[in-house]
Amino acid sequence: MALGEFQLIDRYFRPLQQPGGLSRPDVLLGVGDDGAVLRVPAGRDLVAVLDTLVEGRHFLPGCDPRSIGHRALAVNLSDLAAMGATPAWALLGLTLPAADDTFLHALAAGLAELAARHGVALVGGDTTAGPLALTVQAMGFVPPGQALRRSGAAAGELLFVSGTPGDAAAGLLLERGTAGGLHVTPEQQHAARYLQDRFLFPTPRVALGEALRGLASACIDVSDGLAQDAGKLAHDSGCGLRLELDQLPLSPQLLALVGAGRACQLALTGGDDYELCFSVPAGSLAELSAVATATDCRLTCIGVLEAQPGLRLWQEGSPVQQPAAGFDHFAGAD
Amino acid sequence: MALGEFQLIDRYFRPLQQPGGLSRPDVLLGVGDDGAVLRVPAGRDLVAVLDTLVEGRHFLPGCDPRSIGHRALAVNLSDLAAMGATPAWALLGLTLPAADDTFLHALAAGLAELAARHGVALVGGDTTAGPLALTVQAMGFVPPGQALRRSGAAAGELLFVSGTPGDAAAGLLLERGTAGGLHVTPEQQHAARYLQDRFLFPTPRVALGEALRGLASACIDVSDGLAQDAGKLAHDSGCGLRLELDQLPLSPQLLALVGAGRACQLALTGGDDYELCFSVPAGSLAELSAVATATDCRLTCIGVLEAQPGLRLWQEGSPVQQPAAGFDHFAGAD
Repeated sequence: MALGEFQLIDRYFRPLQQPGGLSRPDVLLGVGDDGAVLRVPAGRDLVAVLDTLVEGRHFLPGCDPRSIGHRALAVNLSDLAAMGATPAWALLGLTLPAADDTFLHALAAGLAELAARHGVALVGGDTTAGPLALTVQAMGFVPPGQALRRSGAAAGELLFVSGTPGDAAAGLLLERGTAGGLHVTPEQQHAARYLQDRFLFPTPRVALGEALRGLASACIDVSDGLAQDAGKLAHDSGCGLRLELDQLPLSPQLLALVGAGRACQLALTGGDDYELCFSVPAGSLAELSAVATATDCRLTCIGVLEAQPGLRLWQEGSPVQQPAAGFDHFAGAD
Repeated sequence: MALGEFQLIDRYFRPLQQPGGLSRPDVLLGVGDDGAVLRVPAGRDLVAVLDTLVEGRHFLPGCDPRSIGHRALAVNLSDLAAMGATPAWALLGLTLPAADDTFLHALAAGLAELAARHGVALVGGDTTAGPLALTVQAMGFVPPGQALRRSGAAAGELLFVSGTPGDAAAGLLLERGTAGGLHVTPEQQHAARYLQDRFLFPTPRVALGEALRGLASACIDVSDGLAQDAGKLAHDSGCGLRLELDQLPLSPQLLALVGAGRACQLALTGGDDYELCFSVPAGSLAELSAVATATDCRLTCIGVLEAQPGLRLWQEGSPVQQPAAGFDHFAGAD
């Protein structure tokens, strides 16, 4: 069924203005005009992020459209979380080859569920015909001077990561079917489903990001692989980093499916985790422990910031070789 | 030459943080972290817009990349202008098949020139591999309650349009070469070039939009064809509209190339004009005349809002047939 652009907007995206059926009083004018009119709360700075998902690059052709809608917003909420921002509003640029009713219904539902969970109102956007891609721009608030940056870490501080990185990368391999080279026995079906869900429906660490304001000295979200993103945090802070591979928090599901060696590699270089990686002074460990409890997030110390630049991997008390480079969207495009 | 994503951002887009070399003090943190940190001025509301340009849909394959960069920002500044907003910041989602140095240099230059003209800082974005497309999200400010909406017009008010609609549509036909069916004689080359430039480098009516705050009762930008967009303004205001075709401001270049009949059709249904269409009470004509002078914009009264719903075209004192439907991105996608 084909729908005109204006019907599309009306049917699927206008309802997303009210997350979970609730209107945000800071949205003075939402979808349906040339622009949205929004009011940033007094005494708050605005944090703005934007991320694009392209079919064949960030999700597989034939992927569950609920996952596409979820992930398009999740990757942006993850960026807001990495800044310590409280999410508020989003705009959606949707390019799709045909206006298919079933597909759009599921895509909008995936986006709406996550938006409602975080009280995010969809306040505008654009739909156009073209190869399937979604660009979401999201906005949130931080108290002045409290945004988390990549550049605030200092030598001697501890590096933490949330959750269990590597799961999403394994999930993607499984989504790809035999191409991933993973053989799944009947007993492993449950673990495999878990890993696929970590790829298809990642959890942006919004509450954690907010709780880290005033506590973490630097923060980044893990989208391109833990080694690369942790390395960026260290580099932008003018530090180096010693990562303890033995400390990587690997999920039992990941270990069951791929074994310790490959699990470690996937955790370091896999990408798509949308966990937070952050530094804290050693004196803040008690406070951080309370944050882990309050936000129900597993937080694991995986290394230490050092004065000497560069990334150094350690395992069983000895330095080991560098892992392969992280995920760079153009690394292979010669 | 292939570039990594981070080098891309550094080389071409980081310099766009400072429009014309000037930094904006309201950008507390720009390109290079997970998000930008921005400060909306006290006593101002935020206006947010987002528009996508897709190759083959909004610009032709092989199009001058300077034009692509210009238009990606211009269509968003036009939306801000239609809201009466003063532009401030933009984010860019750039999807491109390969990281070509020459192409990116020209694209960034087209975007940078227009950004500098309006003091707009590029504060973030995302680059990814995929079919060529640009999504720009732009933000601006309005005094509380002064955003121009589509829905404020009243019966009896006059409808105006800026500039000379139809030029861009003719320019696109010319860009398409013989496919447009336009034959250009040597004497018409100059006019043809003018029309092509109106398509390739549209002028967002930013100063006009700002000047219309408190003066226009409703406003929309003309992107999908004057008849359709004017019709939306009337509809959203709960009015109908009588359009006087004799009053359409047709450029001498357009008339020279296509004649009066086709010029009128292009002006009504062509799209891509990025002019402003707005309503004012008859008592505001003197003030509007001063605005036209101050902003150096040709402003033409083309009709009157009426109580009876619907769009009525009049020519030489008589009603004439409806034009073809305006431009809808999915109208033909059965």
